[in-house]
Amino acid sequence: MKKKNKKVNAAIIIIGNEILSGRTQDKNITFLSNWLNLNCGIIVEEVRIIPDVEKTIITNIKNLSKRFNYVFTTGGIGPTHDDITALSIAKAFKLKYLFHKEAYKILENYYGKKHFNDGRKKMAKMPFGSKLIYNPSSAAPGFITKNVLSLPGVPSILNSMIENCKRYLISGSKVHSQTINLFTVESNISKKLGAIQKKYKRFVEIGSYPFFRLGKIGVSIVCRSTSKNKLKQVNKDLLTLVKTKKIKIFHLN
Amino acid sequence: MKKKNKKVNAAIIIIGNEILSGRTQDKNITFLSNWLNLNCGIIVEEVRIIPDVEKTIITNIKNLSKRFNYVFTTGGIGPTHDDITALSIAKAFKLKYLFHKEAYKILENYYGKKHFNDGRKKMAKMPFGSKLIYNPSSAAPGFITKNVLSLPGVPSILNSMIENCKRYLISGSKVHSQTINLFTVESNISKKLGAIQKKYKRFVEIGSYPFFRLGKIGVSIVCRSTSKNKLKQVNKDLLTLVKTKKIKIFHLN
Repeated sequence: MKKKNKKVNAAIIIIGNEILSGRTQDKNITFLSNWLNLNCGIIVEEVRIIPDVEKTIITNIKNLSKRFNYVFTTGGIGPTHDDITALSIAKAFKLKYLFHKEAYKILENYYGKKHFNDGRKKMAKMPFGSKLIYNPSSAAPGFITKNVLSLPGVPSILNSMIENCKRYLISGSKVHSQTINLFTVESNISKKLGAIQKKYKRFVEIGSYPFFRLGKIGVSIVCRSTSKNKLKQVNKDLLTLVKTKKIKIFHLN
Repeated sequence: MKKKNKKVNAAIIIIGNEILSGRTQDKNITFLSNWLNLNCGIIVEEVRIIPDVEKTIITNIKNLSKRFNYVFTTGGIGPTHDDITALSIAKAFKLKYLFHKEAYKILENYYGKKHFNDGRKKMAKMPFGSKLIYNPSSAAPGFITKNVLSLPGVPSILNSMIENCKRYLISGSKVHSQTINLFTVESNISKKLGAIQKKYKRFVEIGSYPFFRLGKIGVSIVCRSTSKNKLKQVNKDLLTLVKTKKIKIFHLN
């Protein structure tokens, strides 16, 4: 994986009526976001969940592939009628939708010639020029088309394939994060916290998240930055704030 | 709640760096989608997860509020510097951003005059003309601005407020769903399933989802329709397919 010492970003498109309808709880967003940041220094800046509708997929692929370094799609690459991701991406980029020779061979070997039916063959059809993302769980490969990486929707299969995406990605600067959990309410610290955020505006992103734990309410202050040094400086300022306000810190682990 | 006997749709905007970064697993999408469909007959057709960035929030509010009957936002309505949802919505609709008198009173009563600091006052600031969505958990109200309903990001608080959204919503036709779990693989049924989907194209949406349960692989066939009658017809066709292919049905519960 090549390294680029600057910001590299990505968007995720979750393609699937089952997530939109509320039937299935998505697990891929959290997994992909964490993996991309920790392993590749790639920041996920937008996620969209859209239905299995060709026109919608095309619009979103066009829009997001222009605006982000990478786009990850999940879902819709299986053998059934509702699996239209590959065809839609081909249409979005005005590419032919053809059998990928290597994918065809992989699937033919996996299922055996006798059982290699039309549904299974469909999984070897991709936009022209796509490269494969190998699948160690269930053979059917994902693929990358220009800057769009297409993965399956089943989390366990997606997870097993993720390392095979690395060869196609240029990595950026990793974002480090630091969390302090405080036994206070947000409105008690909001003014000073705002001032600290202002001071480190260009370098550190400070988030404030209320929590309820062990019957007590509190606030998690999450700081994120590509610079460990700046994080240390913010931490010092936060500890001064905590001391001044006589707030208890909640130590996890 | 008024009733409209046709399709009513919605989009959800999850505003929050903590979801995008993978730190927090979102729980609001599934809850909102299910609640909207089951209680209001409103179908969620798009979800976006975006960062706490004013320009991004404005762009998305403008785009989605035009395309959908309702837009739900979650997150960013607390007292800290990263809570910019209300201000951004005001800017999106070119409305003034002012104290909402009733919200101000609710919060002043809740905290007491002495403890009603700037952070807490901020939670009473809203786009001009917004109406309140009462909050039985922690006082700070949500609000509706034109067709955009703004709720907090903390799931337990959002859940406690959801019934108070109903008065602002026009309900549509409820989507009924029916699931059959089969001990087979997708590629074994994809052709016939595609034919069934084609037959009921205008009335029923058929989804096919592989699963792994009790060490066996299978497929869940999920049919969704506003017509219970059409669902029954599809079910008949599916049972014929199952019989022809000698597939075992996996009975849950």
